[in-house]
Amino acid sequence: MKKIILPFLILLVTVSLAAQNQPEFKNILYGVAYYHEYMPYDRLDKDIQLMKDAGITVVRLGESTWSLFEPEEGKFEFAWMDRIIDGMQKAGIKVILGTPTYSIPAWLYHKHPEILVDYLNDTHAHYGIRQNMDIVSPAFRFYAERIIRKMMEHYAKNPAIIGYQVDNETTTYGAANRDFFLGFVDYMKQHYINTDTLNKRWGLQYWGMTLNGWDEFPTRDGATNPGYKLEWERYGQQVVADYLSWQASIIREYRRPDQFITHDFMPLHAGQNYVLCNRLLDFPALNVYHNVQDGLKGEDLGIADDYTRSVNRNNFIITETNAQTIGWDSKWQTPPYDGQIRLCVYSHLSSGANMVEYWHWHSIHYGQETYWKGVLGHDLQPNRIYREVSRTAHELQKIGPELVNLKIRNQVGILYSMDSRHALKFMPYKDGDGYMDIVKQCYTALFRNNVGTDFIFTEKPILSDYKLVIIPPLYIATDSLLQAISDYVKNGGHVIMFFKSGFCNQYSTVRWQMMPGILKEACGFTYQEFSSIASLPLKDDPFGVGKENNTVSSWSEFILPGTATALAYYDHPFFGKYPAITANSYGKGKLIYVGTAPSDAITAKLIMDEIKSMGLETPDQLTPYPIVVHMGRNDAGKTVRYYLNYSGEEKKVKYPYAKGTEILSKTSL
Amino acid sequence: MKKIILPFLILLVTVSLAAQNQPEFKNILYGVAYYHEYMPYDRLDKDIQLMKDAGITVVRLGESTWSLFEPEEGKFEFAWMDRIIDGMQKAGIKVILGTPTYSIPAWLYHKHPEILVDYLNDTHAHYGIRQNMDIVSPAFRFYAERIIRKMMEHYAKNPAIIGYQVDNETTTYGAANRDFFLGFVDYMKQHYINTDTLNKRWGLQYWGMTLNGWDEFPTRDGATNPGYKLEWERYGQQVVADYLSWQASIIREYRRPDQFITHDFMPLHAGQNYVLCNRLLDFPALNVYHNVQDGLKGEDLGIADDYTRSVNRNNFIITETNAQTIGWDSKWQTPPYDGQIRLCVYSHLSSGANMVEYWHWHSIHYGQETYWKGVLGHDLQPNRIYREVSRTAHELQKIGPELVNLKIRNQVGILYSMDSRHALKFMPYKDGDGYMDIVKQCYTALFRNNVGTDFIFTEKPILSDYKLVIIPPLYIATDSLLQAISDYVKNGGHVIMFFKSGFCNQYSTVRWQMMPGILKEACGFTYQEFSSIASLPLKDDPFGVGKENNTVSSWSEFILPGTATALAYYDHPFFGKYPAITANSYGKGKLIYVGTAPSDAITAKLIMDEIKSMGLETPDQLTPYPIVVHMGRNDAGKTVRYYLNYSGEEKKVKYPYAKGTEILSKTSL
Amino acid sequence: MKKIILPFLILLVTVSLAAQNQPEFKNILYGVAYYHEYMPYDRLDKDIQLMKDAGITVVRLGESTWSLFEPEEGKFEFAWMDRIIDGMQKAGIKVILGTPTYSIPAWLYHKHPEILVDYLNDTHAHYGIRQNMDIVSPAFRFYAERIIRKMMEHYAKNPAIIGYQVDNETTTYGAANRDFFLGFVDYMKQHYINTDTLNKRWGLQYWGMTLNGWDEFPTRDGATNPGYKLEWERYGQQVVADYLSWQASIIREYRRPDQFITHDFMPLHAGQNYVLCNRLLDFPALNVYHNVQDGLKGEDLGIADDYTRSVNRNNFIITETNAQTIGWDSKWQTPPYDGQIRLCVYSHLSSGANMVEYWHWHSIHYGQETYWKGVLGHDLQPNRIYREVSRTAHELQKIGPELVNLKIRNQVGILYSMDSRHALKFMPYKDGDGYMDIVKQCYTALFRNNVGTDFIFTEKPILSDYKLVIIPPLYIATDSLLQAISDYVKNGGHVIMFFKSGFCNQYSTVRWQMMPGILKEACGFTYQEFSSIASLPLKDDPFGVGKENNTVSSWSEFILPGTATALAYYDHPFFGKYPAITANSYGKGKLIYVGTAPSDAITAKLIMDEIKSMGLETPDQLTPYPIVVHMGRNDAGKTVRYYLNYSGEEKKVKYPYAKGTEILSKTSL
Repeated sequence: MKKIILPFLILLVTVSLAAQNQPEFKNILYGVAYYHEYMPYDRLDKDIQLMKDAGITVVRLGESTWSLFEPEEGKFEFAWMDRIIDGMQKAGIKVILGTPTYSIPAWLYHKHPEILVDYLNDTHAHYGIRQNMDIVSPAFRFYAERIIRKMMEHYAKNPAIIGYQVDNETTTYGAANRDFFLGFVDYMKQHYINTDTLNKRWGLQYWGMTLNGWDEFPTRDGATNPGYKLEWERYGQQVVADYLSWQASIIREYRRPDQFITHDFMPLHAGQNYVLCNRLLDFPALNVYHNVQDGLKGEDLGIADDYTRSVNRNNFIITETNAQTIGWDSKWQTPPYDGQIRLCVYSHLSSGANMVEYWHWHSIHYGQETYWKGVLGHDLQPNRIYREVSRTAHELQKIGPELVNLKIRNQVGILYSMDSRHALKFMPYKDGDGYMDIVKQCYTALFRNNVGTDFIFTEKPILSDYKLVIIPPLYIATDSLLQAISDYVKNGGHVIMFFKSGFCNQYSTVRWQMMPGILKEACGFTYQEFSSIASLPLKDDPFGVGKENNTVSSWSEFILPGTATALAYYDHPFFGKYPAITANSYGKGKLIYVGTAPSDAITAKLIMDEIKSMGLETPDQLTPYPIVVHMGRNDAGKTVRYYLNYSGEEKKVKYPYAKGTEILSKTSL
Repeated sequence: MKKIILPFLILLVTVSLAAQNQPEFKNILYGVAYYHEYMPYDRLDKDIQLMKDAGITVVRLGESTWSLFEPEEGKFEFAWMDRIIDGMQKAGIKVILGTPTYSIPAWLYHKHPEILVDYLNDTHAHYGIRQNMDIVSPAFRFYAERIIRKMMEHYAKNPAIIGYQVDNETTTYGAANRDFFLGFVDYMKQHYINTDTLNKRWGLQYWGMTLNGWDEFPTRDGATNPGYKLEWERYGQQVVADYLSWQASIIREYRRPDQFITHDFMPLHAGQNYVLCNRLLDFPALNVYHNVQDGLKGEDLGIADDYTRSVNRNNFIITETNAQTIGWDSKWQTPPYDGQIRLCVYSHLSSGANMVEYWHWHSIHYGQETYWKGVLGHDLQPNRIYREVSRTAHELQKIGPELVNLKIRNQVGILYSMDSRHALKFMPYKDGDGYMDIVKQCYTALFRNNVGTDFIFTEKPILSDYKLVIIPPLYIATDSLLQAISDYVKNGGHVIMFFKSGFCNQYSTVRWQMMPGILKEACGFTYQEFSSIASLPLKDDPFGVGKENNTVSSWSEFILPGTATALAYYDHPFFGKYPAITANSYGKGKLIYVGTAPSDAITAKLIMDEIKSMGLETPDQLTPYPIVVHMGRNDAGKTVRYYLNYSGEEKKVKYPYAKGTEILSKTSL
Repeated sequence: MKKIILPFLILLVTVSLAAQNQPEFKNILYGVAYYHEYMPYDRLDKDIQLMKDAGITVVRLGESTWSLFEPEEGKFEFAWMDRIIDGMQKAGIKVILGTPTYSIPAWLYHKHPEILVDYLNDTHAHYGIRQNMDIVSPAFRFYAERIIRKMMEHYAKNPAIIGYQVDNETTTYGAANRDFFLGFVDYMKQHYINTDTLNKRWGLQYWGMTLNGWDEFPTRDGATNPGYKLEWERYGQQVVADYLSWQASIIREYRRPDQFITHDFMPLHAGQNYVLCNRLLDFPALNVYHNVQDGLKGEDLGIADDYTRSVNRNNFIITETNAQTIGWDSKWQTPPYDGQIRLCVYSHLSSGANMVEYWHWHSIHYGQETYWKGVLGHDLQPNRIYREVSRTAHELQKIGPELVNLKIRNQVGILYSMDSRHALKFMPYKDGDGYMDIVKQCYTALFRNNVGTDFIFTEKPILSDYKLVIIPPLYIATDSLLQAISDYVKNGGHVIMFFKSGFCNQYSTVRWQMMPGILKEACGFTYQEFSSIASLPLKDDPFGVGKENNTVSSWSEFILPGTATALAYYDHPFFGKYPAITANSYGKGKLIYVGTAPSDAITAKLIMDEIKSMGLETPDQLTPYPIVVHMGRNDAGKTVRYYLNYSGEEKKVKYPYAKGTEILSKTSL
């Protein structure tokens, strides 16, 4: 039976299956960040009424206005917020309360200017913007702890509050303050014990920079050693994780059992290690902003959502996403086309989100984010966006219980290595973030072919849960991780691995075995040389992607095959001697190795060919992009299938499964 | 009757009319800035003889060499300059004397290094260049005042001196020194009284940056608040105006009644508020440098001249303009083609200039401006340029009295808002100086169609003197200014207004009415949304400008027409719902609103269509660019018409008026 | 007889001639920089065996690891290096020992952080990289002298050591520390005696910056005066030369008579004045890195080699050159194609090198130069590159004695002016290093036509040794140099001179004569004006280079010919009045003047036409690029001709000389 999906609209289908999970959420939450304190005049009642009319069920409050909670040092004021929360409570709107620590009050800067970040190379943060403080500063911690405790004492019992957000989009903000550096030295001592170990692991005899003790340990400013740079990044991730855990631990002293703790992460941010940060959180939250209008591509939402879900392999929430427009000036204002607001909500839900919240309710009339507009514009009146939010909200009130707590299990995983991403920026094979280019290329190939994908984090590399593991350039890896990959293949796993994998150990030191070292048997080849390359064709278009797409670029390893067979050769008088891509059967499994950076089309074909040959194909591959099909299991144990139309045109899709009920219309398929 | 104008030449015609104004100048002054102190050997007599031979009538002296007037602290030497002035006096060449304060001596830097500018973000000026001092520094002011008084005591009675130039191309030079900042805090106190007012007007509750008092007021370095940024710019303009007024007030103590005071402004410089600066000046002077050779376009001179004339709506002088070549290195050397020197002189006169002075007499053999060449080259001998200057000078000696004190009255004005220009740089709708792009586009359309144009400054917005007012994006405006515009239309005025007008109040805070707020009735529409756009065509080429020109870009407001009618729609599936340009009759007048950034051709057509429909056309539109026609009334009460040929080819023009006398040939037309 | 040269291969031919020079080297040395101290494990014996097997005859040791010689302040350790040198000695491999002063130990930075460079404009070097110290710092000199003396005491007698390298690629590293600046003031005092002289020569009255004494002399930071900038550059070159001479003088106290002293220069580096630096060296060494793969162009090696050879007009050595790949990251990795390693070795020998050494033996597993790979890759095992090195080494063992101490005498010289190069960067006629663009253009024209070329340095301008002298823009010159050029022409010399020559004196002050001043008679014209130009064609393609190549750009002098005749005019309505290129017979000689920047093709045609008309042609012009023919005389007094094939294809060449023996095959031609 064919169904029509209108432009930027969605189709949802459920299928009965056995129940498994207990829901934490009774329904999808749908709402906004709300800053009544930013309003040019008092309109609390009007706002709440407008929210209620729209069907909004949750607001996030409080994370941006420390100076209203504590207008002067040690003087605390909660009445203004009590009034807001009471209003929400009366309207049946749930509240997530944020700790207000990511933007310090002017009095705190004035009293403790040393809290502000000192950047590398003798430059300094100044007051006038948020996120400019050294989060390990004891002075900052003292004041931050006090306001958190005061807030928790005041609010923990408030029935409207369902959970807490600790801080906001936290990173180190580039801090290199003296105390931050001394913390790094302590961290180094813990990991390396003495500088002799360091001299050896980092090769400090190079250029004669060996250390006689920790007092000689130089600051980050002039560092060129990749090992130093990598540890500095790791330390930064640790600092952020410790800081969030510290806030969470304070809140845990006060919170009720029914209240959750989360933090709103930035999508795949290189300074935020979700796995480390998640230690004392209940689940992660995501602030995801993306292109809109003709630039709206499902994979931008999908990758952020799938990455976030993969942390716990469970549901998560969206704390911030585009309402009207985004931008720190008015150069990139792109309000959504009709239907795009609703499409994005269902996209998030289809990836396992239990809440979608806009940033923010109203547009602000002053400050840096004047043009980062909310559901309401500057005129504070209902508008086109408000109406689409309202439509979506009312829809969710009806069908949300069938969608909430969606459980998603995938057979394909992408191994994500934060260390490799950083280390490849220090020694890039191309301009930009070359690691992420491969990650995104692989993800997009899977996404656009409707193959559900998880991320696997090197911090807990559970390979065996997956049938196929994609490994972007694993430039940094311990011996044991490489061995685990090799074993995974031996035991029947399938791997598609990219160039440079296994090149360095965890100290960013190049291995001195013949490459690919520990992976040699699994890969079935060795190589001694590599070259940067311009764009080159593959010989005889082995993937049948056509002349324009039949290109590889940036990198070429001079593969000398052993047991491996070549899947593709370069079309070049010199490089043509070496295979560009190989396949190797090893034990019960198989490893495909990509010794170069292929075009999007080649990577997609390579991955989908492997999926087909493994028998992992589903009917969803028959309705590929711009139709996006996602599926999971709901609280009732039923399979829910989302059909999302990512084009501006009507699309016909054939529902390829035996039976099902279209949820919105309650009609059988 | 047809007349031929040769390449880069001009044609001037007078017509008898009733007399009105008293001349301050008896003839056009024509001369050079002169630095005998820079000469590699003594050649004063030779230079004066060469000037005399050429017909030069004025020199500017003294503004660049404080260290020659005061070679050591407190030791004053005037003999070297006396000799120069005496020589000029004997040769009948008038002198404008500059105060030498824009470049400090080495001894002053050595004694008071704190005078040097501290820039934002912890960077600092160093000695070795001019215009690197903090002009509010008390130390600087002490020494500057002393040298000015010493010079005035010595020179005020000198009969050769006809006027004074205070300082030179003054701005704040980016100063953010401590005393500069404290001056800003005082300025803020005067305007906002207390920080509670500030908290409210600037919305400092956003990101929790409210202030408990002026001691917490943060420096400019980290400021993100657009209101802060705008006040900082305003303060900078105020500092410059106060500084020039302070110098002028000192000179007023000494000068003779027949001596004028001026300052040489940079064309439409964003850091120089001509209106504020002009308080104690007699008239403004202009340093105008422009493209030459194939890059010589009349509008570059025209806009600078018209803007300067509009300050007093009266005559002005050119203190500096291109002689041979300009440039701080030898990459952009472009000596004028034959005829261009003379063409530019008459262009300036046709816009109301009473003097044209080159920078400078001779080319300098050392220093930063080695390649910013004077009338004489480095060989200090007569050359091609000297010969053309000489020809022009002798011509002016004959016909100058008929050209001097030209009075110009126009019916079209462009409303110039310095605040909007700055505020749009903080929140740009496109890269670059988007405000000026619209100003220049409108000016060029009028200039190339020979429509005389004034600038109207928001500091004194006399709209009613004009029949048509062009309003570039008036992003910043008080309620009263918006009301004045609305009233102007109601009472019969015509307005062509661009997008974003009325968006913010004077604090750079977005208005919270439905846009365009106070202008709603005059505009005849509302809008709630806007979008950045790529280049889009208008539907059905409504202005008949052809496919290549039929484009708008950068910005689109989603206009919901009330009484307004659409003049053009976007050709786009989504944006096509909204008019791009509207017209609205309101009271006795009319307002055309441009909700997007049109191509040059569309803007030109829109403006000229309106001029035609208003009946403001003249025969001058029949001889458009590259023929430029300017007109005014001379001291004899006669109309003078300039016909300037801005092409390298002969042009025939038909003199379309009843009678007239060609001034150069004294022939009747 | 035709001979075939295979891709990237070479052909060598000797011809009997009378003997002349005594060799200092018995054979070509061929080797590597070796850092056993960087190895991840002890493999000294294995490395030496591999070197011996490959035929390597020399290693450079020690210059990069001060902290191993002196791990703690005052604690010296040589045993680790003794063991390496002993191993080499046993294997018959010669040693060049470097002083380890270009990278300071961490303990020295920790003890004396003031040693680190303070850059201009208040920025600072940090520890973590080499070449970051102020080389005039007394603290640095103290420790540097001590380690050098300790090393010399220990090693001077070691029979393996054939010579010493002082420091490494030394420049000032941008130092502007207080003591560096005070040194500059002292240097200025020596050259100008008092500030009155300075005021006059630099024209400090401009902008009123005259000095009353040396205490007022401002720092370099804000300097705009071109004379100041030029002296600062000269001082920097002097500092480097003095520093290297100081190290050489210490070594001279200890070294044996059979040991040489050298320094490894960077090719044509603007901060290294080879002539000044060479004072106490025995001969210069060169570190030359160049493009490889399709980017390998012979002229990149040729220009560096010819420039270095010209310093003493004698043999030199290559201390560093590409092995596998270069690059401070992995973005530009380009291992050589098969044959390119060997081709480059013979290229260097053909220009007079007596040694070729790779940087370096093995690839490093950590640090900044992880991807600057040696002969061995990271796996430390023989590979493709090792095999080609080995082949070449064994070849050299056989034929090297016929190639060593090649004496080269050329008839064409390029006058190189370091001052002009710097001064033209301060006042550029185009973006980039405009001086070097002309130098390289002329050199490449000669190189690709197999015309042997020397460089003549303005520090010792021996023009009369050459029949044709090419003079790139000689922007800075003393009167006596200009007179010498004029006399050279008068006496029969031929000159091809480029624009701007003679424009400034040695103080970077523009001459105030009619240009070209002292050169007027030799040039046969004057000019008063000049202009920047876009790309323009020459009228009627006078050099027959075809439409695409018939262009000049950037600069045009308005030449007014006297005795000179025009060789080419611009095709332009205004510029067309002036000749672009002229020729003038003066005395017995001829001067061709290029008043513009021609295309490569025009410059090449112009030069080769002149060479032909002078009768300097040889049969080598019949086998031009990609065949490169070099020649010289060997120790046996025989002419050696190199035929180098710089293409990837087989090339047939006709051996155009009467008789000869192909060295490799020992066959007669």
